Amino acid sequence: MVDTGRKKRPRGRKSPRRGPPGAAAEAHWIYGRHPVLAALANPARRIKRLVVTRENLGALGAKPRAEAPPAEAASAPEIAALLPEGAVHQGFAAFCAPLEGATLEAVIARAEGRERAAVLVLDQVTDPRNTGAILRSAAALGALAVIVPERRSPHETAVLAKAASGALEAVDLVRVTNIARALEMLKASGFWCIGLDAQAPAALSKTDLTGRIALVLGSEGGGLRRLVARTCDHLAALPMSGPMESLNVSAAAAIALYEAARQGGC
Amino acid sequence: MVDTGRKKRPRGRKSPRRGPPGAAAEAHWIYGRHPVLAALANPARRIKRLVVTRENLGALGAKPRAEAPPAEAASAPEIAALLPEGAVHQGFAAFCAPLEGATLEAVIARAEGRERAAVLVLDQVTDPRNTGAILRSAAALGALAVIVPERRSPHETAVLAKAASGALEAVDLVRVTNIARALEMLKASGFWCIGLDAQAPAALSKTDLTGRIALVLGSEGGGLRRLVARTCDHLAALPMSGPMESLNVSAAAAIALYEAARQGGC
Repeated sequence: MVDTGRKKRPRGRKSPRRGPPGAAAEAHWIYGRHPVLAALANPARRIKRLVVTRENLGALGAKPRAEAPPAEAASAPEIAALLPEGAVHQGFAAFCAPLEGATLEAVIARAEGRERAAVLVLDQVTDPRNTGAILRSAAALGALAVIVPERRSPHETAVLAKAASGALEAVDLVRVTNIARALEMLKASGFWCIGLDAQAPAALSKTDLTGRIALVLGSEGGGLRRLVARTCDHLAALPMSGPMESLNVSAAAAIALYEAARQGGC
Repeated sequence: MVDTGRKKRPRGRKSPRRGPPGAAAEAHWIYGRHPVLAALANPARRIKRLVVTRENLGALGAKPRAEAPPAEAASAPEIAALLPEGAVHQGFAAFCAPLEGATLEAVIARAEGRERAAVLVLDQVTDPRNTGAILRSAAALGALAVIVPERRSPHETAVLAKAASGALEAVDLVRVTNIARALEMLKASGFWCIGLDAQAPAALSKTDLTGRIALVLGSEGGGLRRLVARTCDHLAALPMSGPMESLNVSAAAAIALYEAARQGGC
């Protein structure tokens, strides 16, 4: 849930603006060994059901969380029957409420005083697999948050959670009402906003990515919208030497985070 | 189809060693605007059926390939009925024979005389979505080929082709019987083999990736197998500063190709 400065919205109150009717953040299955264990380890995650195969009961740890429901033992086909077709569940499934989203203010507050901090801003990335994959790269490469527009962004679902492979528990997914306004807020808080744009004359590797930065990526088809591109401090291009016109947005996000880590001496 | 030096296998002869029984390379649907147009533009691609919506007939170009079947016009739901559930087809579908795989020898011959050339070697990457995504990054960042073991690698399927987004037509997918032997062959031909290994003391950014290189990536769970790691000239690690233990293998491949391009001055 997000507030970009206009009006405080009380935490925990369900907002009617999270998405189209019926698509509002709903409880969903998280499955696979790593995602389920990460959900269990996250005190902010509300778990409604926990279903594992008998041989996986031991992997849940000796001290289950007080508020978590007792684990139900089930066969692998019984677990599969709860999940989307073809789900690779590895004998672990948890029915969870989506996480209470962090606010942009909270992310900015966490970055204060840090010499280096990176956030990703996704403008109109609609595929939940891409958003999940980007969360995973953000978690691996140390980004603080992934910022998406409240509208036209995928909700936390089983598909997104699976692609994130546990990263939903580690990286803040922040929903804002307006991306350009979020960028202005980041800039006012000392973030340098760099938009990735295939047509930009500057190469990403020649662009200063040290300090506090927001890396802004557009949709695969359309790139950055004009207002979003104009709001960035700088536009930078990735090297494209091959016959394909564009990288997948999650590959581009991983590369941008890597380049920032490299420049930071990692 | 591949030959790593032991015995020449005549081109076009169907090999019984392409995979487990029944899973041998079979015709499959390619769908989505870009993948289908890329397949049509590839003279090596044998197309058996071409089905598009009426409004997309014009996009096929005035001069269809002589050997391609005439396009069938169909409604979007009729096309969807031909494809895996939930397939985002954009009104384009083509039923295709898999491409005749390139040989490692042919890839090495193409690299000869080039100052810079990169190939990716995937050891036990089993998810067709990852292999497809890696092909796409390889095409965007100018790699010559993606080399996979004949066994335990995904075949060219609709899922792989969709993730590759047309890159199957642009980058050689080479199947070899033995990865370690393929690395020896690459080394003998002047390639420097660099394995990505999270435990390696050297950072990828400090490793020389200029010249002709093979970037070797292991499975997400197990990393590089010992013999494969030993066969590499050098092992290098990506920076991992976050709470997650590992990047997705397709994110790691994109980063490795980017780093090679960056060092090459792109």
